[in-house]
Amino acid sequence: MDDTKNPWTVVSRETRYENEWIRVDHHEVRKPTGGPGIYGVVYFKNHALGIVPIDEKGNTILVGQYRFPLSYYSWEIPQGGGITSKPLIESAQRELREECGVTARQWLQVLGMDLSNCVTDEQGTAFLAWDLTDGVAEPEDTEKLQVLRLPFWEAVQRAQNGEIRDGVSLAALFRVALMALQGELPEPVAKVLRR
Amino acid sequence: MDDTKNPWTVVSRETRYENEWIRVDHHEVRKPTGGPGIYGVVYFKNHALGIVPIDEKGNTILVGQYRFPLSYYSWEIPQGGGITSKPLIESAQRELREECGVTARQWLQVLGMDLSNCVTDEQGTAFLAWDLTDGVAEPEDTEKLQVLRLPFWEAVQRAQNGEIRDGVSLAALFRVALMALQGELPEPVAKVLRR
Repeated sequence: MDDTKNPWTVVSRETRYENEWIRVDHHEVRKPTGGPGIYGVVYFKNHALGIVPIDEKGNTILVGQYRFPLSYYSWEIPQGGGITSKPLIESAQRELREECGVTARQWLQVLGMDLSNCVTDEQGTAFLAWDLTDGVAEPEDTEKLQVLRLPFWEAVQRAQNGEIRDGVSLAALFRVALMALQGELPEPVAKVLRR
Repeated sequence: MDDTKNPWTVVSRETRYENEWIRVDHHEVRKPTGGPGIYGVVYFKNHALGIVPIDEKGNTILVGQYRFPLSYYSWEIPQGGGITSKPLIESAQRELREECGVTARQWLQVLGMDLSNCVTDEQGTAFLAWDLTDGVAEPEDTEKLQVLRLPFWEAVQRAQNGEIRDGVSLAALFRVALMALQGELPEPVAKVLRR
């Protein structure tokens, strides 16, 4: 018996809500133990992208914005939704340019994650970006952003003390911090993050 | 002008889907820049709880289960949904006992996170748990689980190489690993995780 195969049986499926970003399907199911049940799933049309940019002084960039679903202001790494039909890195490059006005010549994927796998299929990818050039930000019309440049280790401190709560930001900042402490970063980044 | 105040105006709000776990509301809004728009939000009725248990040999525990929304098998830290009207730690203690048959005498909160703040209000909390006693697992009827005990640093390795993709698991494992490397763990845990 293969314990990793799908233990759920879908009896029926109906879309109950849909907009440009998500689709909500209601399923009637038989549960892993055989009894009847229901499962509502939120399918995402975009891929979440996060970027940890590191400049030549060892600074990173955080973006502040009001998050409508949570009704509070949130400080996060630069991020946005990528179209899955295009290379994710192109969308990440666009987000960094639009939100922060920054172009990076070097990119490294540091994380692939499922954001909320109990109810959604949302997936995310985070990149480390370095060799930066400053330009002019062009935020989308749904975004009203503050951009803060600060030492990378200060951002990690904010993640550790609860000032940053966004999941992609926490996982990505902690991942890059671990890479720094374990000597796994590309040398140009390792050099400026050394403590 | 306060840049951190709510830049969204809600024009109308209608619940489009609801079950025992989530409610999906469709909002007509005025966007931060003033134009008309819509916002679909998924409100969660439970709080996500994750646990990083550490035994006296420096092992942690991972749980494997098939995730219906993503249609694949996922290895994660022990986790579940907590009722927000009760202390979160009680729900975390129950989850660890039900999923893994383990009781822990010592608990420390290591993480508070928003899992997917673009579309949902889902929040999560992760705990470090130690001073463990083994018992018998009692999984819920929606759960068909495999339980794996392995060295903590091997679990971190799995998180770093992409074998673990769950957001709460990644953030919590990386956080505890950082605490270990930075000398921030309680001594009984620090001692068994020293490398």
